[in-house]
Amino acid sequence: MPAALADTLLYRSLFQDQDSAEVFTEAAELQAMLQIEAALAKVQGAMGIIPQAAAGAIGQICRETKLNAAELAAETGLNGVPVPALLAALRRAHPDCAHLQYLHWGATSQDIIDSGLALRLMPLLDLWQARIAALLAGLARLATAHAELPMAARSYGQIATPTSFGAVVAAWGWPLLGFADSLQTQRTALSRLSLSGAAGTLAAMGLDGPKLRAALAQELGLNDPGHSWHSDRSGLAGFAAWMAGLMACLGKFGEDLILMAQSGLSEVKITGSGGSSTMPQKQNPVAASVLAALARQCIGLSATLQGAALHRQQRDGAAWFTEWLTLPQLCISTGCGLATALKLLDQITPDPSAMARGMDDGLNLIYAESFTFLLCALLPRPDAQAVVTSLCRESQAHKTPLADLLARDFPQIDWRAQQAGPAVLGQAAAEARDFAAKVAARADSWIA
Amino acid sequence: MPAALADTLLYRSLFQDQDSAEVFTEAAELQAMLQIEAALAKVQGAMGIIPQAAAGAIGQICRETKLNAAELAAETGLNGVPVPALLAALRRAHPDCAHLQYLHWGATSQDIIDSGLALRLMPLLDLWQARIAALLAGLARLATAHAELPMAARSYGQIATPTSFGAVVAAWGWPLLGFADSLQTQRTALSRLSLSGAAGTLAAMGLDGPKLRAALAQELGLNDPGHSWHSDRSGLAGFAAWMAGLMACLGKFGEDLILMAQSGLSEVKITGSGGSSTMPQKQNPVAASVLAALARQCIGLSATLQGAALHRQQRDGAAWFTEWLTLPQLCISTGCGLATALKLLDQITPDPSAMARGMDDGLNLIYAESFTFLLCALLPRPDAQAVVTSLCRESQAHKTPLADLLARDFPQIDWRAQQAGPAVLGQAAAEARDFAAKVAARADSWIA
Amino acid sequence: MPAALADTLLYRSLFQDQDSAEVFTEAAELQAMLQIEAALAKVQGAMGIIPQAAAGAIGQICRETKLNAAELAAETGLNGVPVPALLAALRRAHPDCAHLQYLHWGATSQDIIDSGLALRLMPLLDLWQARIAALLAGLARLATAHAELPMAARSYGQIATPTSFGAVVAAWGWPLLGFADSLQTQRTALSRLSLSGAAGTLAAMGLDGPKLRAALAQELGLNDPGHSWHSDRSGLAGFAAWMAGLMACLGKFGEDLILMAQSGLSEVKITGSGGSSTMPQKQNPVAASVLAALARQCIGLSATLQGAALHRQQRDGAAWFTEWLTLPQLCISTGCGLATALKLLDQITPDPSAMARGMDDGLNLIYAESFTFLLCALLPRPDAQAVVTSLCRESQAHKTPLADLLARDFPQIDWRAQQAGPAVLGQAAAEARDFAAKVAARADSWIA
Amino acid sequence: MPAALADTLLYRSLFQDQDSAEVFTEAAELQAMLQIEAALAKVQGAMGIIPQAAAGAIGQICRETKLNAAELAAETGLNGVPVPALLAALRRAHPDCAHLQYLHWGATSQDIIDSGLALRLMPLLDLWQARIAALLAGLARLATAHAELPMAARSYGQIATPTSFGAVVAAWGWPLLGFADSLQTQRTALSRLSLSGAAGTLAAMGLDGPKLRAALAQELGLNDPGHSWHSDRSGLAGFAAWMAGLMACLGKFGEDLILMAQSGLSEVKITGSGGSSTMPQKQNPVAASVLAALARQCIGLSATLQGAALHRQQRDGAAWFTEWLTLPQLCISTGCGLATALKLLDQITPDPSAMARGMDDGLNLIYAESFTFLLCALLPRPDAQAVVTSLCRESQAHKTPLADLLARDFPQIDWRAQQAGPAVLGQAAAEARDFAAKVAARADSWIA
Repeated sequence: MPAALADTLLYRSLFQDQDSAEVFTEAAELQAMLQIEAALAKVQGAMGIIPQAAAGAIGQICRETKLNAAELAAETGLNGVPVPALLAALRRAHPDCAHLQYLHWGATSQDIIDSGLALRLMPLLDLWQARIAALLAGLARLATAHAELPMAARSYGQIATPTSFGAVVAAWGWPLLGFADSLQTQRTALSRLSLSGAAGTLAAMGLDGPKLRAALAQELGLNDPGHSWHSDRSGLAGFAAWMAGLMACLGKFGEDLILMAQSGLSEVKITGSGGSSTMPQKQNPVAASVLAALARQCIGLSATLQGAALHRQQRDGAAWFTEWLTLPQLCISTGCGLATALKLLDQITPDPSAMARGMDDGLNLIYAESFTFLLCALLPRPDAQAVVTSLCRESQAHKTPLADLLARDFPQIDWRAQQAGPAVLGQAAAEARDFAAKVAARADSWIA
Repeated sequence: MPAALADTLLYRSLFQDQDSAEVFTEAAELQAMLQIEAALAKVQGAMGIIPQAAAGAIGQICRETKLNAAELAAETGLNGVPVPALLAALRRAHPDCAHLQYLHWGATSQDIIDSGLALRLMPLLDLWQARIAALLAGLARLATAHAELPMAARSYGQIATPTSFGAVVAAWGWPLLGFADSLQTQRTALSRLSLSGAAGTLAAMGLDGPKLRAALAQELGLNDPGHSWHSDRSGLAGFAAWMAGLMACLGKFGEDLILMAQSGLSEVKITGSGGSSTMPQKQNPVAASVLAALARQCIGLSATLQGAALHRQQRDGAAWFTEWLTLPQLCISTGCGLATALKLLDQITPDPSAMARGMDDGLNLIYAESFTFLLCALLPRPDAQAVVTSLCRESQAHKTPLADLLARDFPQIDWRAQQAGPAVLGQAAAEARDFAAKVAARADSWIA
Repeated sequence: MPAALADTLLYRSLFQDQDSAEVFTEAAELQAMLQIEAALAKVQGAMGIIPQAAAGAIGQICRETKLNAAELAAETGLNGVPVPALLAALRRAHPDCAHLQYLHWGATSQDIIDSGLALRLMPLLDLWQARIAALLAGLARLATAHAELPMAARSYGQIATPTSFGAVVAAWGWPLLGFADSLQTQRTALSRLSLSGAAGTLAAMGLDGPKLRAALAQELGLNDPGHSWHSDRSGLAGFAAWMAGLMACLGKFGEDLILMAQSGLSEVKITGSGGSSTMPQKQNPVAASVLAALARQCIGLSATLQGAALHRQQRDGAAWFTEWLTLPQLCISTGCGLATALKLLDQITPDPSAMARGMDDGLNLIYAESFTFLLCALLPRPDAQAVVTSLCRESQAHKTPLADLLARDFPQIDWRAQQAGPAVLGQAAAEARDFAAKVAARADSWIA
Repeated sequence: MPAALADTLLYRSLFQDQDSAEVFTEAAELQAMLQIEAALAKVQGAMGIIPQAAAGAIGQICRETKLNAAELAAETGLNGVPVPALLAALRRAHPDCAHLQYLHWGATSQDIIDSGLALRLMPLLDLWQARIAALLAGLARLATAHAELPMAARSYGQIATPTSFGAVVAAWGWPLLGFADSLQTQRTALSRLSLSGAAGTLAAMGLDGPKLRAALAQELGLNDPGHSWHSDRSGLAGFAAWMAGLMACLGKFGEDLILMAQSGLSEVKITGSGGSSTMPQKQNPVAASVLAALARQCIGLSATLQGAALHRQQRDGAAWFTEWLTLPQLCISTGCGLATALKLLDQITPDPSAMARGMDDGLNLIYAESFTFLLCALLPRPDAQAVVTSLCRESQAHKTPLADLLARDFPQIDWRAQQAGPAVLGQAAAEARDFAAKVAARADSWIA
């Protein structure tokens, strides 16, 4: 009985990302906890905190046990956390194993859960890194291919000046380059072991606490934070903000596609668009709309998760539960956003003739700024701007091309040439190619 | 692979509400759509828009068909909406039924989906109405039982003046009384048929559109809106805000319980509290913390849903999908919040002696305001207030009861009497009883 | 040094609403507090709680005093609330007036501040009611004038079926009708007296508390809540949600105008559009963009204010301050949104020829649904839909009008007639006129 | 007529931060724009894009002009941006200066406004860096001074195990260390020149665009982004998230202080607390409540600003205005949060005896975990845990110290010793001192 569309059979093609969701299965969660408990015992055994034999037995049991989430549910419902139920289940399954008394020695639930989450987030970041790299590579190809394809730049929905489709594509990609880079910062911030004991002091470990924490971090491939961070949620809050930022970029990509595909403009064709139950002609930009919706969802979930960093005292159940209620959906929707953007990238084709029509309906208004600068050869710029502004109004009122009006009043300048030359695109093509070059140059750093 | 804790086996006891979730199963959603299609055909048959025989056949097929959500998934993924897939599945299942050409005659996907949602929300509101009524009844019992049990009122966490536990309970209940009343407004706003055709004009219905809409509304037990509301999402946005408001009240109940149960104050005992994996003495207010977390989650989801009312043009896929991504979780968490609050209500017991200790640690500071008013018999109030303020400082510095200091300086007044009399509680007991009376008086109106 | 653009000289034409802001000046706030204190004394005098002479003197002092906000600042900074500073200032100004000892008798700061806010919100609601009524009247005029002006309805940005501009205008107006009605509910909820004393029990008033509260409510023209609502913030939270809902509707109006005014579509001309610092042809839909931005801001502020309803214990300074930090800006931006929408309404002119071009680029795809229903005379509907879908693709590929292709394959139907008749608009004109009629019918109820 | 409490005289001591607000005055904004225009002309003059003489004249005019915000208001209201009005005002003031035709050559409003904001944010970050450093230094002092002062750690509001006040202080500081470090990342991200011309292509600059951008960046001390970022708002969105993260940490500090100062616990005294208008004994933790409120406000504003990164096409007025409507308030409240935290730091004094009482009400339950580990010398840990859990219940039921019960049942262990030794604090003291050492070690890096 799904609370999330991602969890339905019906809507999973739109809103689910199986690969990202793997990390948030109950099996994966329980598995990670067992891995932490096993590693804790191993390191405690090596340091003599618990008997070596116990460490070995605990390790084997943790590796071999398959826990049944349903059986842990009732006790989890009581305690708020699944760890006591998990420990009890292991002991119930091995009633005669005396070694199990050394299980979970000196740790607390939050250590196991937060560390387990750190472990699970690593493959998620690997997955996303590959997707962002693929997205950047695809955008780079598209930007290169259409570096000089002219189209109208728009602000406030109004035609501004010419740009190129390649430059527009590069503008989708530039911020993604930043997120590709900062993903590494996220990895460092998130791959933190938590081992602080009941209330952050590791008291049950005696003097060996910090040494044990360092060794356990090494065993698990996580960072040693050097102190307790039970109540410091800035790592997860920052990750939430990172996802919101990434999704805003992908949402912009979706919104721009919806606008470019609008009937009457149709600057971009999107194959695989959606049909209507009643309108035969409809080709709805469904995936682009999904992207915009996921972005809104993620920005909202991220705000709630950032708010949960207001974590009271040494541990705050209410704030911690708020993280649990938002993080999985936020991650899955972010993963789905990346997958949807990748899919969309293969489905879009610019329509050069529609773009040409979109730039100029025959009145040449898109060249008004460049005409002004040309006219500065004859007039001071404020005067030139006033003249062109006035001719723009005349052009619109009488449906006469602006170039014709300018040629009428200032015949000494070749106004037609201005619209054809490469100068009209300014740095557009160069930015498109530069973006592709930057992607190529940095591709190695993400894969390593 | 759950995006929502509510959808896990492990955490369902904490965050799931099966009864609310029923409404959001795929089975329920598909069922509601079939019910709309059947009713549409029936009414169209009766009005002669489609053949009577077709209406009968469609009705029977819709009643008898069990759709398999998984089979509709691929086509839903393409179209963004499940309706075309649903229609195709019905036709595939009955390839020789010519009547099916009259299925979904003149309707659009959004009509079916929005109307289906309206149908499904009705039993949800019934369920919640009963829960709110039970919660109010429980609070009324508690308020009555402890109408005169003195405890410290607190502002900013500081002791203010005496109140009674019954008055505190009533304060949890007063706003719930308002939500019990406004649930009826929600019902009216949400039980609206949508039937506007492809783009809000019902063009495919010819002149009979409005008559058909009215008849269909009556058939389904929904309201006839009298016009298209495809792009008017104020009903759902208002419902989201209503849930946020309700959950803020329940979250306050949770937060107050966490504070009252704090070690060292313990004014309330909560049975069934949660244990720790390492601390034997722990009795964590888990359910109260869950309530606070659900409130934060719901307030956040509600904001996203309210934002989706910024719905562009005649239909906005991105905005509509944003509703889908938030509404089910918001409703399920609201349902879970009500269930959790009901459970908690049975688990709390006030501790009169702890409350008495909490009121007065022997220094009588909680009576400072009432002492001031007593002293006004001898001094103007600003002077009285200055005297008492100064004696409060002396009392704290020397650990001497304030009443003793006042008796030393103003022996003509009986300072001890003030602490014992019923006047000290002001209207607290009356408010507790009045709340219970209001609940009793209005109980009938909710059940009807 | 303004934290809010509304408070700047530079941006006030865009983001300020002087009339709404009046309510939130310090002068208005202090004035309202003085009015409450005067009325409290008057009623207490009449009931014999304080001497009649004191009541008279306090009333006169409150009426005649002009407080200087700057002088209250330091003490307000210390106490968190301005009331102690206000009382002290009155006493300082009248050092010899013994009557002033009866000032603020038995009340607490929150009583004065919350009641003062209630008083101040009443004229704000009056102002907005008049603006919503004017907006509805303007929309009704526009809907009537263009009830039959055909334009393309769009979903997902794609052309759907024909509608009329009047129906589009009516769709902006329908939800506003709802907000015009629910404004009355807000008035009732907000015009609540708070008088509960130090901690909600009115203890300082003795047995007369409830009688006094009722009398004071009558004196001030506010409702008597019948109990303490210090910690029940559902009234303000509901008001915040109401503003968010209203602003989402106005934001949709803005977004739709931005889309309709897009270069290349230009279905609507907006006079008074904004110029660029460098592009002479630019006519940016500035006011429409402001409306969309104000909507986003208000939805966000409203979420914070709704979250502040999680108000702990008997009074929660942190939650209360959060209200203060959001409410004034939320109200002023809502007022500004209404004013901006009113201004925009006078600036928009539909362009029938652009609308005609937008409906049909010559391929007739907008009629695809109605052609399908025509074709049902010859074929079962699924077959008809498949035929038309296929001809839509052919039409687009070969730039041949869909009607020509249909005429080629099904010459027995007059395909051209379909595009011309009034049936093509369905209920569009009727909905436009019905909306105007509803506005006219209800106009009286708002003014009363 | 203030929309923001920060802009009032009455509330400025609570919610204003004059130093942060300096950056957002109209004077500062206009000044920064003039500085950009002057530098642009200077660099264009040096590169021969405009005449050297014009560059000199423009520079002088920009330096000498004092613009009157009120005079620019009407035109700003029309255009949505103040730049056209600013240019016009300069030309009006110097009607005969022909050089002014070269003012703003090839730039667009957004270049000037975004670059001006970048310039203004730099001193703001300097200011905050110093405050964060001071806050860390103060926390380090406090942590060192009380590294071994025992108090109860709490989770879910319940006593967990002993910790030290120094460790609690260090926990407030650890995440701030992270924000001190990441402030540098923010500086890099924010100090970006924008120079992209009308629509991101710098077309008006001819081939020299990128060279000009690099030179202008150097002239202004900003980074050269190497491309247009008009529509890439990830820098500001990331800054918003950074502020939300910082404020959540400060809000936690405030919330913890409110909890520690609670009547009945009083582990911390806060001098300078607020008084009540009616309760003489009240000492409300006003500043701590302000901190919590500012945190909630900032988290909300940040979410709106992060959402504005969904920026459509080449420039999106609605999204841009949304940034303007949130950023100043967000920055001023963040600055106020830092100032308030600094002030609070000087006002808090731990109360060792209250902390001792808070740890142990005589029943020793806080030692239950450490008793369990002691008992493991005699029993397997699950048995030990079960025994101690059972004795905890007995201890509570009969008000008998847990140590007495354990001594009764297991006389061979010295249970009293456990409560006294330093081991009971675990790593608490070490963490407190380690935090102080880290602050000292890194202090230099922030100041440089």
